[in-house]
Amino acid sequence: MLILHSPLDMHVHLRQGDMLALVAPHTARDFVAAVVMPNLTPPVTELTQVLDYREKILRVAGESFSPLMTLFFKSYSRDELLAARPHIIGLKLYPAGMTTNSEAGLADMRQAHATLAIMEELDIPLLIHGEGCGFVMDREAVFLPVVAEWARSFPRLRIVLEHVTTRAGVELLDRFDNLFATVTLHHLLITLDDVLGGLMRPHLFCKPVAKRPEDRDALRQAALHHPRAFFGSDTAPHPITAKEAPGCAAGIFSAPVALPALAGLFEELDALDLLQAFVSDRARAAYGLTPMAREVRLERRAWTVPERFGSVVPYLAGQTLAWQVVN
Amino acid sequence: MLILHSPLDMHVHLRQGDMLALVAPHTARDFVAAVVMPNLTPPVTELTQVLDYREKILRVAGESFSPLMTLFFKSYSRDELLAARPHIIGLKLYPAGMTTNSEAGLADMRQAHATLAIMEELDIPLLIHGEGCGFVMDREAVFLPVVAEWARSFPRLRIVLEHVTTRAGVELLDRFDNLFATVTLHHLLITLDDVLGGLMRPHLFCKPVAKRPEDRDALRQAALHHPRAFFGSDTAPHPITAKEAPGCAAGIFSAPVALPALAGLFEELDALDLLQAFVSDRARAAYGLTPMAREVRLERRAWTVPERFGSVVPYLAGQTLAWQVVN
Repeated sequence: MLILHSPLDMHVHLRQGDMLALVAPHTARDFVAAVVMPNLTPPVTELTQVLDYREKILRVAGESFSPLMTLFFKSYSRDELLAARPHIIGLKLYPAGMTTNSEAGLADMRQAHATLAIMEELDIPLLIHGEGCGFVMDREAVFLPVVAEWARSFPRLRIVLEHVTTRAGVELLDRFDNLFATVTLHHLLITLDDVLGGLMRPHLFCKPVAKRPEDRDALRQAALHHPRAFFGSDTAPHPITAKEAPGCAAGIFSAPVALPALAGLFEELDALDLLQAFVSDRARAAYGLTPMAREVRLERRAWTVPERFGSVVPYLAGQTLAWQVVN
Repeated sequence: MLILHSPLDMHVHLRQGDMLALVAPHTARDFVAAVVMPNLTPPVTELTQVLDYREKILRVAGESFSPLMTLFFKSYSRDELLAARPHIIGLKLYPAGMTTNSEAGLADMRQAHATLAIMEELDIPLLIHGEGCGFVMDREAVFLPVVAEWARSFPRLRIVLEHVTTRAGVELLDRFDNLFATVTLHHLLITLDDVLGGLMRPHLFCKPVAKRPEDRDALRQAALHHPRAFFGSDTAPHPITAKEAPGCAAGIFSAPVALPALAGLFEELDALDLLQAFVSDRARAAYGLTPMAREVRLERRAWTVPERFGSVVPYLAGQTLAWQVVN
């Protein structure tokens, strides 16, 4: 038996409508709170949208789960951010065009400065999809200088490099005390080899794309030991028709398997005792959170992941995991 | 009007059965001869299979096309190779497991030496799928030392590095006069960015996978100017059900668009005058071929590539090309 105290998923895509109803209960079952990304259509840029979206999530996720809401980064006034602050955990910045529904994102990083200064003053964290333009395997690396400049220019602004995928990204954490990172489950498990080294696997396609073995090694070290690296699944469901298609959408639906698969990995790495820190304690410290107290229990008992949840193929579909959630 | 004299496709997969009947006429229409890969199920390792396969190809491809047959590389006796020599253009070596139907390939490269010595003596070329084990983006690079060792150890053995994808592969050509390379259409046009930099594109998935922009630049330079680089499409059809699937098969069906797309690219590179060398002359010199005399004519007239040929989605499906074949 493994007991996790108030596990947190610091990066989820809960979508809208029927998909929200399908996927949110999986996150709500295994986590007491989750950071909800704002890349809807249209993006969540108004406080009224935040409150409305939060309401809709609570309706399907139940009372034992707290959605931690975000605003889509754009230029905001001090008054706007002051009004939003009690209702959000941070602002999520997407460089334009880098992932699903990010077309409204930022095209010129210099335009961010005024809003970043207000966020620093109001102590509102910045969550970044850290990819710039360029060749797909280099996009995180080419964006890191922007992250470094902001971390240096705004030393009291907490910056979270979301779904870090590279050794260079992990190494940047050591240069700035105000820099944090989320690490996904799938980037701890796969490399580009799994995506297209054999047959090509649309259900392993995500953004940022999985990188090299040495990058995965660095992510694993960070997940185990880095005080400012914590779990964010980036669970990102798409219907099977959008995945097994001539243009396959980016995203891996990992919510139903996140804790069991993490337990399996940490056990394999002989580090089960570090899982609590990775899935809860470090995020609490980073954000100054006091999540509701709830225990999530896992048993070391074989569990075969279903091939589908509704229209969505989950990560690790059909595979048998050593652990399962038994609440 | 662009007239190509006896164009040659020095690397094709014509498959078997219904697929053979569907795809071979496309190659036969635009090329006077093509090097036919032997990775069938089971692989073509016997002279009787070569003759039988050749017969089947001729039945669907017509009289104005010559299939240039290959044997699947394994250990062969001198007598076997002597008997096969009049009927084949070379032996194709697949490291085990690197692409479609290559499970019977070579696992230990040192086992090749005795057969390579016989091939050198009998002047039978070696065609190589040049990928070793390791991370998918490194597989060609890690295999090049093997190619270099063989080129050095067997200086009179002609070696063709098939579907070269990297700058390092191109550079190796300059070190050995007995080393040649085929270059595909798609590796001249796409990089990994096209495969999964936006949405993921199963119809652009092939082995070796498309590499980096600087690799593509090197391939383009070789296609234009290197006297030992020539065209081999690696046209490799799969039914749509094997492409838009949870495990997408590797291969791009480029036969119907190869010459029009090459004409468009060479025109864009202001090098239309070099296309004849790339699609015929250099391969003739490399192999000492005297192909049948036939002109293939292209006109600069817009042509929209069909979305399907039977069960197969062609490369550039739905796109409008500037050139078309008008025989």
